[in-house]
Amino acid sequence: MVLSNHVECTTMSPKKIKELTEKKHRVETGLFLVEGEKNIVELLHSDFEIVALLGTKQFIGAIMPHIREYEQNPEHPEFTLEETTEAVLVRSGTLVSNNAGIAVARQKDAASIESLLEAAQKSIVVLLDDVRDPGNLGTIIRTADWYGVTYIAASPTTTDFYSSKVIGATMGSFTRASITYVELEDLLLQAKKLHIPVIVAHMEGENIHTTELPNKGFLLMGSESHGVSSLSQSFATNMVTIPRFGKAESLNVSVATGILLDAMRSER
Amino acid sequence: MVLSNHVECTTMSPKKIKELTEKKHRVETGLFLVEGEKNIVELLHSDFEIVALLGTKQFIGAIMPHIREYEQNPEHPEFTLEETTEAVLVRSGTLVSNNAGIAVARQKDAASIESLLEAAQKSIVVLLDDVRDPGNLGTIIRTADWYGVTYIAASPTTTDFYSSKVIGATMGSFTRASITYVELEDLLLQAKKLHIPVIVAHMEGENIHTTELPNKGFLLMGSESHGVSSLSQSFATNMVTIPRFGKAESLNVSVATGILLDAMRSER
Repeated sequence: MVLSNHVECTTMSPKKIKELTEKKHRVETGLFLVEGEKNIVELLHSDFEIVALLGTKQFIGAIMPHIREYEQNPEHPEFTLEETTEAVLVRSGTLVSNNAGIAVARQKDAASIESLLEAAQKSIVVLLDDVRDPGNLGTIIRTADWYGVTYIAASPTTTDFYSSKVIGATMGSFTRASITYVELEDLLLQAKKLHIPVIVAHMEGENIHTTELPNKGFLLMGSESHGVSSLSQSFATNMVTIPRFGKAESLNVSVATGILLDAMRSER
Repeated sequence: MVLSNHVECTTMSPKKIKELTEKKHRVETGLFLVEGEKNIVELLHSDFEIVALLGTKQFIGAIMPHIREYEQNPEHPEFTLEETTEAVLVRSGTLVSNNAGIAVARQKDAASIESLLEAAQKSIVVLLDDVRDPGNLGTIIRTADWYGVTYIAASPTTTDFYSSKVIGATMGSFTRASITYVELEDLLLQAKKLHIPVIVAHMEGENIHTTELPNKGFLLMGSESHGVSSLSQSFATNMVTIPRFGKAESLNVSVATGILLDAMRSER
C-alpha cells in the first residue's frame, strides 16, 4: 500500500470518489464504492481488487490486520491507503455519518450465460425480473448468500448491483455474489432446451409446503409492482405459491425470496 | 365530505400536513399521513377515521366509489376532500412525485397488554425488540398481515408505526395491524406466568424444519444490529434457528420474520 496523509497525494479526490455514487461514472471507470465497517472488512477478504481505501485513523488502525492479510496476496496490486476525517468521508460517499471509511474497488466481470446454465444444473440460481428498489436487491443478495446461492441473473431493468445502497444492504454478502444482467428470455430459452427447472411464484401455483420442489434450477422473482412478466412466466416448469393466512395482497420480493429459498433448501 | 377546490377552504394547509412527517407533530395532533394509491384505497375500507383527503382531480375521480362507500358508514364523521395539484401534494408529503393523493387520518388507540396476552394464547403475536429501520417495520407489518397476524408489540426504541415510510412500506397492511409500544420485559414477565410460548430466533436454536413449533404465542424478533437483547432472550421457551447453507452472518429482520412465520403456520 501507499500510505498518504495528505489529500494532495491520494490518487482519488473526494469529488472523484463521490462521482462513483452515479451509475454513469461507475460504468465509465469500472469502479464502485464500499462503505461501512462490515462491508470493508468483507471486501478485504474477498477476491475484489481494491484501488483506494480512505478511513479515519482509528478505523484504519482497527482493520490493519485485515489490510496486512490482503496485501500478503501477491495477486493484489498496491492500493492507496489514506487517513482522513469524518467530514471528508461524508463528503466523498453516501452516508449521513461515517466514522469508519470508504473503499474504492474494481468491478468484476459478470458470469457468462454458459456458467449460469451450468450453475443452475447443480444448484439454485436466482433470476430477478425488474427489481427496482436497491434495498430489495441488496437484501436478496444477502438472503441468497445465507442459502448458499452465488449466482444471480437480473433483467437489464433491475437496479444496478454496484450502487452504494445495494452494496450497503448486502451487509458484506456482495463479496460472495455474482450478478449478471441479461435478457431473461434469452436465458430461459436456453434453460428450456436443457430441461433446467424454472420455479415461479404465482398466486395459482402449488403450495410450497405440500408439493415437491426441485433443489436446483432457476428461481424467478418478479418486480415489486408488476410481478414476473408474462413472457418470463411462460417458461415456468414449477408454479408455486406461498400459502397466505391473512389479507395482504402480496409479500415484499426479498421476503418472498427468503421463504422460497428456505423451502427449496429444506426439501433436501 | 366537504368538497373544496381552494386551498383557502381546506382545514389543513400543506404546511400543517407536512408537519405530520415529524413524530413530534404526530404525537401532538394524534394524526398521521397516508400516501400512495393502494394505501389510500385500503384506508377508505378500514376502521381508521379520515380527517382530510387531498388528491389530483383524476385520482379523486378514480377512487370516488371507495369514498362513497366510506361515507355511507354513519360512524364516519365528515372529512375535507380537496382537489389539488401534484406540486401541492409533493410539497405536503414525503414522496418525490405524487400524482395521486394524501390522506390525513386519526391514529387508533394501542391494544392493552391484556389483549396482547389474550391474542398470544390463541394465535401468533410478533414482538419487535428495537427495530430501527422504517422499511423493515413496514415490511414486517405487511408480512404479518400475509400470515394473518394482527397484533404486534414493539419496544419503545422501535421506529414509529405512524411514520410515512413505515405506512408506505406496509402496502396497505397498516390498516389491519395493531401496534403497541411496550416495555417487552413487562409483557414477557406476564407471558411467563400464563405459560405462553415465547419463540426466539438464535444461532444455537433448534432447526425450524425439524423441531415442533408452537402455532401460537409470542414470536420475538431482534434489532438489525444487536439481535434480541439478552434480558428478553432469557424469557424464550423455544430457541429456534433458520438453517444456513452459505456464508452470510445473518438475515435481514423482515426476511427472518417471514421465514419463521411461514414455518409456524405450515406446522399446523
